[in-house]
Amino acid sequence: MPAPVKIRLVQMEVLPGRPVENTEKILNRISEARAAGRTLVVFPEMAIPGYLLGDEWERPAFLRECEACGEDIRVASAGITVMFGNVGVDWPRRNEDGRVRKYNALFIAENGCFLGPEGGPYPFVIKTLMPNYREFDDSRHFFDTRKLAAELGQDPRDLIAPVQTACGRIGAVLCEDAWDQDYAVSPLEILGGKSVDFVVNASCSPFTFNKNNKRNRVFSEAARRLQRPLVYVNNVGIQNNGKTVFTFDGASCIYDGQGNPMATLAPFAEGVMDHALSEALQFEVDHDLRARSLSDVSLFDAILYGTATFMKACGVERVVVGVSGGIDSAVVAALYRHILPADRLLLVNMPSRFNSPTTINLARELAKNLGCGYVEIPIEDSVKLTRAQVDGVDVRWPDGVKRLALADFQLENVQARDRSSRVLAAVAASFGGVFTCNANKSEMTVGYTTLYGDLGGYLANLADLWKGEVYELGRYLNETVFRRDVIPEGSFSVMPSAELSVAQAVDEGKGDPLNYSYHDTLFRSWVEDWNRSTPEEILEWYGEGTLEQHLDYPGCVKDLFPSPKHFIDDLERWWNHYQGLGIAKRIQAPPVLAVKRRAFGFDHRESQMGPRYTRRYKELKKQVIG
Amino acid sequence: MPAPVKIRLVQMEVLPGRPVENTEKILNRISEARAAGRTLVVFPEMAIPGYLLGDEWERPAFLRECEACGEDIRVASAGITVMFGNVGVDWPRRNEDGRVRKYNALFIAENGCFLGPEGGPYPFVIKTLMPNYREFDDSRHFFDTRKLAAELGQDPRDLIAPVQTACGRIGAVLCEDAWDQDYAVSPLEILGGKSVDFVVNASCSPFTFNKNNKRNRVFSEAARRLQRPLVYVNNVGIQNNGKTVFTFDGASCIYDGQGNPMATLAPFAEGVMDHALSEALQFEVDHDLRARSLSDVSLFDAILYGTATFMKACGVERVVVGVSGGIDSAVVAALYRHILPADRLLLVNMPSRFNSPTTINLARELAKNLGCGYVEIPIEDSVKLTRAQVDGVDVRWPDGVKRLALADFQLENVQARDRSSRVLAAVAASFGGVFTCNANKSEMTVGYTTLYGDLGGYLANLADLWKGEVYELGRYLNETVFRRDVIPEGSFSVMPSAELSVAQAVDEGKGDPLNYSYHDTLFRSWVEDWNRSTPEEILEWYGEGTLEQHLDYPGCVKDLFPSPKHFIDDLERWWNHYQGLGIAKRIQAPPVLAVKRRAFGFDHRESQMGPRYTRRYKELKKQVIG
Repeated sequence: MPAPVKIRLVQMEVLPGRPVENTEKILNRISEARAAGRTLVVFPEMAIPGYLLGDEWERPAFLRECEACGEDIRVASAGITVMFGNVGVDWPRRNEDGRVRKYNALFIAENGCFLGPEGGPYPFVIKTLMPNYREFDDSRHFFDTRKLAAELGQDPRDLIAPVQTACGRIGAVLCEDAWDQDYAVSPLEILGGKSVDFVVNASCSPFTFNKNNKRNRVFSEAARRLQRPLVYVNNVGIQNNGKTVFTFDGASCIYDGQGNPMATLAPFAEGVMDHALSEALQFEVDHDLRARSLSDVSLFDAILYGTATFMKACGVERVVVGVSGGIDSAVVAALYRHILPADRLLLVNMPSRFNSPTTINLARELAKNLGCGYVEIPIEDSVKLTRAQVDGVDVRWPDGVKRLALADFQLENVQARDRSSRVLAAVAASFGGVFTCNANKSEMTVGYTTLYGDLGGYLANLADLWKGEVYELGRYLNETVFRRDVIPEGSFSVMPSAELSVAQAVDEGKGDPLNYSYHDTLFRSWVEDWNRSTPEEILEWYGEGTLEQHLDYPGCVKDLFPSPKHFIDDLERWWNHYQGLGIAKRIQAPPVLAVKRRAFGFDHRESQMGPRYTRRYKELKKQVIG
Repeated sequence: MPAPVKIRLVQMEVLPGRPVENTEKILNRISEARAAGRTLVVFPEMAIPGYLLGDEWERPAFLRECEACGEDIRVASAGITVMFGNVGVDWPRRNEDGRVRKYNALFIAENGCFLGPEGGPYPFVIKTLMPNYREFDDSRHFFDTRKLAAELGQDPRDLIAPVQTACGRIGAVLCEDAWDQDYAVSPLEILGGKSVDFVVNASCSPFTFNKNNKRNRVFSEAARRLQRPLVYVNNVGIQNNGKTVFTFDGASCIYDGQGNPMATLAPFAEGVMDHALSEALQFEVDHDLRARSLSDVSLFDAILYGTATFMKACGVERVVVGVSGGIDSAVVAALYRHILPADRLLLVNMPSRFNSPTTINLARELAKNLGCGYVEIPIEDSVKLTRAQVDGVDVRWPDGVKRLALADFQLENVQARDRSSRVLAAVAASFGGVFTCNANKSEMTVGYTTLYGDLGGYLANLADLWKGEVYELGRYLNETVFRRDVIPEGSFSVMPSAELSVAQAVDEGKGDPLNYSYHDTLFRSWVEDWNRSTPEEILEWYGEGTLEQHLDYPGCVKDLFPSPKHFIDDLERWWNHYQGLGIAKRIQAPPVLAVKRRAFGFDHRESQMGPRYTRRYKELKKQVIG
């Protein structure tokens, strides 16, 4: 290997679907790297097109644009080795859907030429392992090494090979290629057997809370296994698949040949990092740069970054938040206040006769603490008008006139819709902005929200947090972010309530039908657990006395319910909501900002099939309640 | 081959996610087939679990239930050969996502045993070709033959083999396995080389308008190539992936060894069909049963079936339709009237001061013609109230009080939201039903709809039809379905208009900003064409003078626009809507009933990235307008 290799990692914000803008940035970074005397500059996976683009990949004009941008980079590679992700298009060949052949590819440009793996058919590296889980749809869009090998009558091992560059023999892979534990093929292992000088993994890897620890283990172990330094470059920014918005934290890192992380770029920020590799493959690095722990990436960081970047992407500059005095809307308001100047944030309280002075005062206090705009727009007159127009109205039928009636419980949803679809939407239009959806994940799971009411809004940025996590985020905002109680203490201590009827009077200690400390753990098991549980497992565990352990619920479930029948009634009530109307509501819900390992929307694909119970569940139920 | 083979095709309605109910039906059909002396009975792909289930496949309890149901069928196979689709689970092994190994499998049960392909590792046939386009996510959930072959160090050809049964050597495949033109591996070709007596294709293949002609060609050609009879069994029913609802038309068919279709089961209906194969592989069939043409499956059939079946699946028994007097709501109302008794359908007209007596009278006439319920609920008072509450309201800011204002154009959306979220939602609750979304595909494409307004509703059953197709469906309803003008002639002839401002006064010939006869073809090219076009191609074709030909637009585009600049302004205006707010609105739109080759939602995956134009487009634009 010609030494030393002066590597620059470029952790850039990739704008999805904007190849020209991304390429301009890449070209600037290349110029700067050359001026700084770097010999190798590495960009993330899909740095030109972006990655989560829906079916944008089906547009030939988009593919041609990406290809042309790649050419610009090739031309700009005089005297330097440039690695970057792009779509690799083989126009005469076809994908299995009959459309033009596309690869998720890593290009290596050097002195005006593209360099491919030794003996390979293309002047680019092909992603071998295709993630098809969570938000990923790789096989929908991209052909892969294994399919290509089958087509050529070769072994995939023949197609995975180092790339000989001026900076040495590089084992170049893309993202999932290093996450090989569940695949029959291991690109890194194959490369390890073909004498590489070092490994580069270019990624476009979304943030998931606590994933960086795993990522660190995977890459550290890979470097150790190969006994080669490993360079990991990931992008920042946000990308979405319609229903779900993902953040990318970057956290690009470099590992030595013993698997020690050397240094990590700060998360959720663009940045570059330089390292030099000696002839002996040793890092010439200041040890003060040793990797800082990544565990300090908080949910707050991700939500703040995701929200602010989404606003930028959508051109949102002014925000209206409906504030009830409760914790969810208070946390949303405080988050936006951290992003926006005071004059661009407007809080609206919309009391009906069911709203207590307690919560109205909390809303006022919140607005005062945040120093933003505040207005109270009562909905009582409108709800009365709707009642007058519907309750008792004469409908003409061929056989005569019949009257409609509107029951009290139906007026609950009338209020919720009135607030969002009538008031907030009009206020947002008038204010020149959008209004927010303040729903949390607990409510979203069981559809404890009103469609076109509190489930409306341009983005649901708390909808990946359980109710308990919303409280924690509220504390964090007061204690760590604002360092004063911007969210009034009363919003933490008041009974959580929709305040839509006398049965939900907070001053009488009445409120939501959910016991969040228990139900959060139950819903997590249904939604987020790896092998997602159903009432069958829950009842099995309940019978065994292991439910608390399985749910990680700190209390005792039997204390919550007077009898097994009550336990089962509660279980079925919420399962019916989760699998019934909950899905219908989520289909029409706003985009969810994903921060954990299973967010509603494109990450947790659902079909409306109604709630169902297995035969085994029915047997267990018989055993428990006879 | 032991002769004759007495085949029964069972075209059943598969209920997605309901293995026990499906299995009960299968067991009944097996008993009937045995009683009728049949020797082979064939059910569709995924007849036990259903197919489009979102991520239901990740629930171990669901997989165990499917497996247990499969066991019930095995036990019931005494004296008869039974073929049925189910998930094949290999519990100790893993999929590439790390979850339990699952196959899309075809089981063959005979005398209490499962029979697998000769020399294969499993007692079931594995689907080899995995569709990962449109609504299909096969690689997300299922391991396939090629991955298995790689894992076992075998050639896929070794794993694809006939199954020896009491009814002969059957070449058994699943759905996509026969649609092999874009794959490197052809399961049918491999089977053809291993001496099969006949071929069975079990499918779960959604209806797409005009797809049956292609299906017929593909299967006919396959039978001819192999010179073997081919049995094609498909299910009926509906299945959905949340945002998009698909119908299954069945149209199960049998082909002789020369590729001639022998007989076809009626579409969109359960049914069985018997055939006998002689020792010489000849059909013993009455030639009066020769295949009827499938071209008579109309969009009306699919929409009616899809809507009625979706209602049944969701438990919807009463429907409220907001009727404006225009064509879309009239067609929706007439469709529901064909499904529901008169007393379960309620039409609501909600005039504001912008609604002309012309359209109000058309709404009244429609209700009279349909003989259903009708009520007028004016929205004027509510809109006034909203205006009074928002326009001029004092907002408190830290630096003093400022007033909000509400512009006239903002009142347009206030009216639309008032109708759906305030009135229709309350009326539907009172009526004990749901309200419909009447949006068509033209409006959905460019978001010419109001979120929480006319884009609200439980199902958008016209949203896969262009405006022109809605008119055609209206004519079809009057002429063929009702055989009288239930939709008033005025609803066809009135200017299409939202009637939300004086600028949209229908009696003055003012209305929608869309010229549907042209824009329908433009939008179709963006949304439905195989290689979806963008402004780049449109402008290229415009410059070449080939735009009309590419769009299949019968007029002359240059007659529509006074200058190239006007053409480009219009193009960019609608492209900006389609790729901008249109996506934001579709994310929160109701489920779309898919009937054609590209429906919004899960079939046409989208990411919010804002409208974009390629460099090539910008060059062309310069050439055209300098």
